[in-house]
Amino acid sequence: MNNFEFSNPVKIVFGKGTISRLPFLIPSGSKILFVYGGGSIKKNGVYEQVTKTLQGWDVTEFAGIEANPGYETCMRAVHIIREKGIDFLLAVGGGSVIDAVKFIAAATCFDGDPWDIFTKGASIESAMPLGAVLTLAATGSEMNERFVISRESTNEKLSSASPKVFPEFAVMDPEVTYTVPVHQVANGVVDSFIHVIEQYLTYPVNAKVQDAFAESLLKVIYEEGLKVLDDPYNYDIRANLMWAASNALNSWIGQGVPQDWTSHRLGYALTVQYGLDHAQTLAILLPGVMQYMRKEKEQKIVRLGEVVFGIHEGSTGEKVQQTIEATEGFFRRMGLKTHLSEYGIKDWDIDALVEPVRQRGWKLGEHANIDWQVARDIFKLRV
Amino acid sequence: MNNFEFSNPVKIVFGKGTISRLPFLIPSGSKILFVYGGGSIKKNGVYEQVTKTLQGWDVTEFAGIEANPGYETCMRAVHIIREKGIDFLLAVGGGSVIDAVKFIAAATCFDGDPWDIFTKGASIESAMPLGAVLTLAATGSEMNERFVISRESTNEKLSSASPKVFPEFAVMDPEVTYTVPVHQVANGVVDSFIHVIEQYLTYPVNAKVQDAFAESLLKVIYEEGLKVLDDPYNYDIRANLMWAASNALNSWIGQGVPQDWTSHRLGYALTVQYGLDHAQTLAILLPGVMQYMRKEKEQKIVRLGEVVFGIHEGSTGEKVQQTIEATEGFFRRMGLKTHLSEYGIKDWDIDALVEPVRQRGWKLGEHANIDWQVARDIFKLRV
Repeated sequence: MNNFEFSNPVKIVFGKGTISRLPFLIPSGSKILFVYGGGSIKKNGVYEQVTKTLQGWDVTEFAGIEANPGYETCMRAVHIIREKGIDFLLAVGGGSVIDAVKFIAAATCFDGDPWDIFTKGASIESAMPLGAVLTLAATGSEMNERFVISRESTNEKLSSASPKVFPEFAVMDPEVTYTVPVHQVANGVVDSFIHVIEQYLTYPVNAKVQDAFAESLLKVIYEEGLKVLDDPYNYDIRANLMWAASNALNSWIGQGVPQDWTSHRLGYALTVQYGLDHAQTLAILLPGVMQYMRKEKEQKIVRLGEVVFGIHEGSTGEKVQQTIEATEGFFRRMGLKTHLSEYGIKDWDIDALVEPVRQRGWKLGEHANIDWQVARDIFKLRV
Repeated sequence: MNNFEFSNPVKIVFGKGTISRLPFLIPSGSKILFVYGGGSIKKNGVYEQVTKTLQGWDVTEFAGIEANPGYETCMRAVHIIREKGIDFLLAVGGGSVIDAVKFIAAATCFDGDPWDIFTKGASIESAMPLGAVLTLAATGSEMNERFVISRESTNEKLSSASPKVFPEFAVMDPEVTYTVPVHQVANGVVDSFIHVIEQYLTYPVNAKVQDAFAESLLKVIYEEGLKVLDDPYNYDIRANLMWAASNALNSWIGQGVPQDWTSHRLGYALTVQYGLDHAQTLAILLPGVMQYMRKEKEQKIVRLGEVVFGIHEGSTGEKVQQTIEATEGFFRRMGLKTHLSEYGIKDWDIDALVEPVRQRGWKLGEHANIDWQVARDIFKLRV
């Protein structure tokens, strides 16, 4: 096991009817900016629950956070916060809204150009307090310090992190996910599954707790994920998926172990250039990373096959192959496409897709041996 | 899954050489009370590491915390803190020292008689900041808000909890546990195993993540526990046991599930009246609780048998019986006794042992159906 340092102070408020706890979670007298996305919370009753429970509070609404939250939109929120003297940010939505609010919290207190946080690794010295009401089991943003922001004018999608932007609380009522559209539910399942994979599927360092926790989450997400589309109003399935998705990316399972975020980093270009959903990009790329890095990841791939997919027969090589196929098969059973060509992306489009890797000189993977040329080979495997 | 609310803000600093991180963890300029136990830290090099790394700091030592930390000792520390204007508490030791420091932190700020915290459930409104350097994988106190204190003058051992006494940090270097005496290592393994059991072995509420995490910890503690006595200088075994023991009682696995702390609550009397180590009391009582509550706990006992002990054959009743025997067998393989008679405690001593349960009117267990008479029956099973 490698050395590690970490803490995660997010207060979790989990279960039925927990939105009504908001008045006890937000500091009394706060001037709140209530941030949400495209309006789905007005259809599923969450908007009504939030506004009702915060009746009498000083609440300003800020709607319109995009699926890939945009820098320009966030900066408009920063402007309003300064203008109105807002002192608490409430994110109501999925990972996009929460990511946006984290960046807004940091950008409001940032001295200089906030885009430097992404491009120059500028440190976040302080941020506004924020809380989250989660409406989608997927990114884990409600329980971590990471955020990803896109900038249209420069065609970029970049991530950053700071302990200053941990939500003070995350309200998680699984019931509010009953009416999430099918493709978003499926995306969430695949996204959270791959979050675990990126912290697990490297090489073993005898970190038994972390590995067993990761395997636990993979199994839960796989098994419940296959059930949820047929049984969307089942509370237990929703609750297990929601809690698994938070644990998939709250840093717990990633402590003291090597990580490999290649599928995430390569996937951003597919979103920026072709507008694919985040999970769609991962479903394409992960099987390619597994295929290309099958030797380096052999032990963990075999173990993944055994524990999650029940693959016990054959040589090591055969088990590896079966596990890669089972992983891709899982994504397809969830309704996601797994090849570039299914989105009309061709072999000759790949150079542009790896351009961000080349430009930034990224060396990805747990061995830092995936440069833009290797990335190109991985993309080629996924045509 | 039941509703839950929780947070755990403890910063974990885990791995080789991490004691040297202390100057970056304690607020600069602090007047520190350095609290430890009977002096084992002077033999294993920890005392030297701590004093060396805190050279130049204003440090007052307070030694002599007992294995079952005493109220009277803690109140002496409170006196010194007030006298010297101490403003940071550093616990260096196992669960006893950390528990003591938590109580000292609360008692120093408490308005009134601090014993009321235990006997009258008096609320802890504030506490001094504290940090921990862990020297023993066992109680999980380094990462939770609970503490147990004994009072000689009244023959009591009682527990309390408050979010105010979470350590600010826990420094966990597995290397410092290499030289822990064998019986203490074994106690730690049994203690942490039973911490998981008390949050797991009840009735299922379809909390898949919590159950799988609990099973992960039980498996790790069982497998590494059986190895550690023969291979005490193996870093990975020590690291896995240390991290498993923290996770066993950092509240994570206990969220949203029923719990049953009967073995703990009944065991206190064995410590107070006969001086048994905490883990020794648990090793006696847990098999009795399992035996007596075999019907109520049937599903989870069978699952425990399958996952941890590999028991797959026989009727449900047979599997339950085999699992109870395997659990007791594990404790015996760790060198612990599992019967009262092995400590010279007889059938006619039991009435006095259940007297605290009778006096306080406790109803223990996940169904709150274990009163003093049931407790007596459980003790009788363990003669």
